[in-house]
Amino acid sequence: MRLDENARGVFVITPTPFTESGALDLASTDRMIDGFLAMGVHGFTILGIMGEAPKLTPAEALDFTRRVLKRVDGRVPVVVGVSSPGFATMEALAKGAMAEGAAGVMIAPPGGLRGDDAAVAYLVQAAAAVAPAPWVLQDFPQATGTFLSVEMIRRLAADPRLVMLKAEDWPGLDKLTALRRLSAEGKMRRIAILGGNGGQFLPEELARGADGIMTGYAFPEMLVEVCRLMAEGQRAGAQDAFDRHLPLIRTELQPGLGLAVRKYVLQKRSLIASAALRAPGPKLSPETRAEVDFLLARLG
Amino acid sequence: MRLDENARGVFVITPTPFTESGALDLASTDRMIDGFLAMGVHGFTILGIMGEAPKLTPAEALDFTRRVLKRVDGRVPVVVGVSSPGFATMEALAKGAMAEGAAGVMIAPPGGLRGDDAAVAYLVQAAAAVAPAPWVLQDFPQATGTFLSVEMIRRLAADPRLVMLKAEDWPGLDKLTALRRLSAEGKMRRIAILGGNGGQFLPEELARGADGIMTGYAFPEMLVEVCRLMAEGQRAGAQDAFDRHLPLIRTELQPGLGLAVRKYVLQKRSLIASAALRAPGPKLSPETRAEVDFLLARLG
Amino acid sequence: MRLDENARGVFVITPTPFTESGALDLASTDRMIDGFLAMGVHGFTILGIMGEAPKLTPAEALDFTRRVLKRVDGRVPVVVGVSSPGFATMEALAKGAMAEGAAGVMIAPPGGLRGDDAAVAYLVQAAAAVAPAPWVLQDFPQATGTFLSVEMIRRLAADPRLVMLKAEDWPGLDKLTALRRLSAEGKMRRIAILGGNGGQFLPEELARGADGIMTGYAFPEMLVEVCRLMAEGQRAGAQDAFDRHLPLIRTELQPGLGLAVRKYVLQKRSLIASAALRAPGPKLSPETRAEVDFLLARLG
Amino acid sequence: MRLDENARGVFVITPTPFTESGALDLASTDRMIDGFLAMGVHGFTILGIMGEAPKLTPAEALDFTRRVLKRVDGRVPVVVGVSSPGFATMEALAKGAMAEGAAGVMIAPPGGLRGDDAAVAYLVQAAAAVAPAPWVLQDFPQATGTFLSVEMIRRLAADPRLVMLKAEDWPGLDKLTALRRLSAEGKMRRIAILGGNGGQFLPEELARGADGIMTGYAFPEMLVEVCRLMAEGQRAGAQDAFDRHLPLIRTELQPGLGLAVRKYVLQKRSLIASAALRAPGPKLSPETRAEVDFLLARLG
Repeated sequence: MRLDENARGVFVITPTPFTESGALDLASTDRMIDGFLAMGVHGFTILGIMGEAPKLTPAEALDFTRRVLKRVDGRVPVVVGVSSPGFATMEALAKGAMAEGAAGVMIAPPGGLRGDDAAVAYLVQAAAAVAPAPWVLQDFPQATGTFLSVEMIRRLAADPRLVMLKAEDWPGLDKLTALRRLSAEGKMRRIAILGGNGGQFLPEELARGADGIMTGYAFPEMLVEVCRLMAEGQRAGAQDAFDRHLPLIRTELQPGLGLAVRKYVLQKRSLIASAALRAPGPKLSPETRAEVDFLLARLG
Repeated sequence: MRLDENARGVFVITPTPFTESGALDLASTDRMIDGFLAMGVHGFTILGIMGEAPKLTPAEALDFTRRVLKRVDGRVPVVVGVSSPGFATMEALAKGAMAEGAAGVMIAPPGGLRGDDAAVAYLVQAAAAVAPAPWVLQDFPQATGTFLSVEMIRRLAADPRLVMLKAEDWPGLDKLTALRRLSAEGKMRRIAILGGNGGQFLPEELARGADGIMTGYAFPEMLVEVCRLMAEGQRAGAQDAFDRHLPLIRTELQPGLGLAVRKYVLQKRSLIASAALRAPGPKLSPETRAEVDFLLARLG
Repeated sequence: MRLDENARGVFVITPTPFTESGALDLASTDRMIDGFLAMGVHGFTILGIMGEAPKLTPAEALDFTRRVLKRVDGRVPVVVGVSSPGFATMEALAKGAMAEGAAGVMIAPPGGLRGDDAAVAYLVQAAAAVAPAPWVLQDFPQATGTFLSVEMIRRLAADPRLVMLKAEDWPGLDKLTALRRLSAEGKMRRIAILGGNGGQFLPEELARGADGIMTGYAFPEMLVEVCRLMAEGQRAGAQDAFDRHLPLIRTELQPGLGLAVRKYVLQKRSLIASAALRAPGPKLSPETRAEVDFLLARLG
Repeated sequence: MRLDENARGVFVITPTPFTESGALDLASTDRMIDGFLAMGVHGFTILGIMGEAPKLTPAEALDFTRRVLKRVDGRVPVVVGVSSPGFATMEALAKGAMAEGAAGVMIAPPGGLRGDDAAVAYLVQAAAAVAPAPWVLQDFPQATGTFLSVEMIRRLAADPRLVMLKAEDWPGLDKLTALRRLSAEGKMRRIAILGGNGGQFLPEELARGADGIMTGYAFPEMLVEVCRLMAEGQRAGAQDAFDRHLPLIRTELQPGLGLAVRKYVLQKRSLIASAALRAPGPKLSPETRAEVDFLLARLG
């Protein structure tokens, strides 16, 4: 299964489950994949920022990738994050992931690039390094430090292997509208656009033309439901479903702390055995856990 | 009226109203102050980041300050932001504001300070520059680039003129708990702590020991209501009141765009005549305005 | 005297002299101007980053500007830095400076602009705010955080009031060559280009097509000499003259400390009465002073 | 050979040689090591920022490490850079390097740490991850974004396995003096301190108490000579030897370009076969190469 421009729906960014002692937890990996599939998700993304990818050794990263792909078994596409400081590593990661059955790879630009042309040039080189894999461009300037303008994305879309944009600039809704307008006017190849940003603008993203969302929010069944309601034109109903979850979405969005909240929720939902992050990483205070418990109780 | 450690409640960070052509709009200033007071707010903060302070000439800043203080007329305390690259300017601003009747001044550290001790030393010098005014420490590292640890704030609280912390580190709830714990254990002078961050964690902030909130969210009456419910121990009711507004809070929080959303809402609420920002500043797209309208309609 | 594209030579960026107690030292200002003119400099720039401009009150900035302009008395052009967070302030500063007889103003972009087009748009608006003054574009990304590509500068040069580039990107020599090539090929209006960066690449900058240099190095007579030798084609002699000063140039380039070194040297040269910086600012250690003394002794 | 606090002299940070097509060039590795040893260097550091470490696959990094260690064959200590986003990778790298015969490992803190205590805590955890290897702390805030105060370094020196500081804060000379003073007063364990920063402050660093320097400047024999002269008390002679090289040191210091200059010089000195960097990386323009040639000709 190769990712293409027609991809849509909810792609869950999975965490990487660890045991309390910090070892890869492959049994939880299976359980988590099964659970998410039962919730109706349309794809997975692994080894992204939220997957603690840089904390894995290359061997562990490959083990985890294999396990996920084996469990998913072709039912939905799996995208593998391959951002890396050098193209040699990126090429090796992409080759390994595609050989194992990944549907595509995801690339975010690094920081420190000097101007629009330098950022485009970097991404063109990165795309060459991962060839012939289809690739997803992650537009996440608050994490990468590199801004991607509408025009830069339009230029990058000339590459037929760029099949999807993970749109999580903040604010980013007008950019999404501008990109869709360019495609409607025939000025830019239409690629899939999935929203992000922890899901906090999902209804607006879909209304602006996103084809779905790629995020790790711990209740992906709500994301699936909102996508369905929006597709049926039920704007108000979608917002109702979304608003119920916004307090928890907000809590998961806290920088540096959000992944620990997310793993805690996934553990409470019995999707993973332990909420442990690998060091260096935060631990939740009792007060934070109580706050999350309170919000979970309100979700019912 | 001098600000002291017993300050509490909702301090509204006001925008600076302009006419469509960019002139100071002092008539709207009066109307906005009257409106906020009618909503039961407990104080004001002017000329902060959200007040477009750096876009005013010094003469305009003083005109605006005078107008606000005259209109408030001592009914509630008014805090004036005086952060400035040099201590000479900071001293002049503080002196001018206090002479006009301000209750205190607010200071945020600049970026680029080298280590904890350098940041503390800077703030000690800044506090000396604004003497004898009471001062509020703004802890907002995502904007300033300078992190303030619990221990640094404890050291700064040795200054009896530091009467309030505007706590908007993100995440910042465990820091709030740690500060309150220090005071409870007699290890730190108890100062007022108001939350911030656009109001997005108000219930949690109050539960963790905040005395109120200082933010510019366009419906301060909700903030007042949540403070009241929390003070009465109605945690769930407070969360209900809060959750209804969270979608709009989220929309106002967008960096670089939030103030334009906020002014648009205040204009729709007839609190100011124009939503105009001074250049350089963003304009809302029709799509964004429609999204805000939709959320306002849902608020009823 | 209005600055135009034919400006050339050594423009000294002057510090702002203070007394030991931090007051503006206007007597030293006169002495410093006289001294620099006697060394053969071709222009001045005041109230830049090295002029501690943000630490002056607006009234002080105007006093200092007046004093410099009166003392220079039209013998050479004086450029006034007007970078400011808002266009209202920038306009007021530019108007004031030009009314006093400045030859032009200098603008650096702020940080945080999102992409090439946003940076160009900002600078076009800033240029409008300072109209009808001729302006100098300061390209100093290591301080501003905003990168300016060759293409962006080419676009900005369409404004006939942009008469000079202060080129201090680091590294920046290939950019300088690219700009000169564009003008040679008729693709870009030829504007004056002065180097910067504390003078550390002066011979190379001139060989690449710079018309001179704008910097505050404490021995501008060496800069004048190197410009003369390069104009006469004496590349090796210019390098010899330059190399003798490079150890001190290197010492003045230290971020956060360099201005204190520079003022110390100017005091030792009897150009200013006190080496004092306004707070917040560093003080030289005895060890650093001894190191500078050693280098000065070697210069003879 | 284990690195300890008595290490001193010139540790060369080696580049990683590649062929024109980007493959590891192990033959050049041998030649380069032989050449540097013939120049009298006292140690090597490999796989640092200047070694393009992040562009190597783990297998390549290990191949290169083995080759260097085999060629050095215990004649001088070899330090291996192991900075890495996660402790699992850091542990694996350290274990691998020490097993191959490295004398110690080098660690730089990442950016984004929140305050002094968080940075110290990170480094304590990192040191545990590389146990039982002796380690070098790289203090390079302009690259890492994390400032290390004198007090933080003093705290870290309580770990007996911290045997060396690579001191390249900028400015950093007063910090060096303060650290040496603490040790002289018995308040801090004396560890080896080597300077850095491309060598641009070598005479001052040694005069302030450094035990040598760790840098990749392409003429390490000059660094050896300056260390010798300083040890003999020949301050002026040392400065003479240093000053001759300062123009080239300055050219090698350009951020993002310096390594390309350095490899070009090493190639001209026949120490490596190709000046190629791995992508992403800059190429030298003909003008830059001519400038370097000119400076090399002047060096004779």
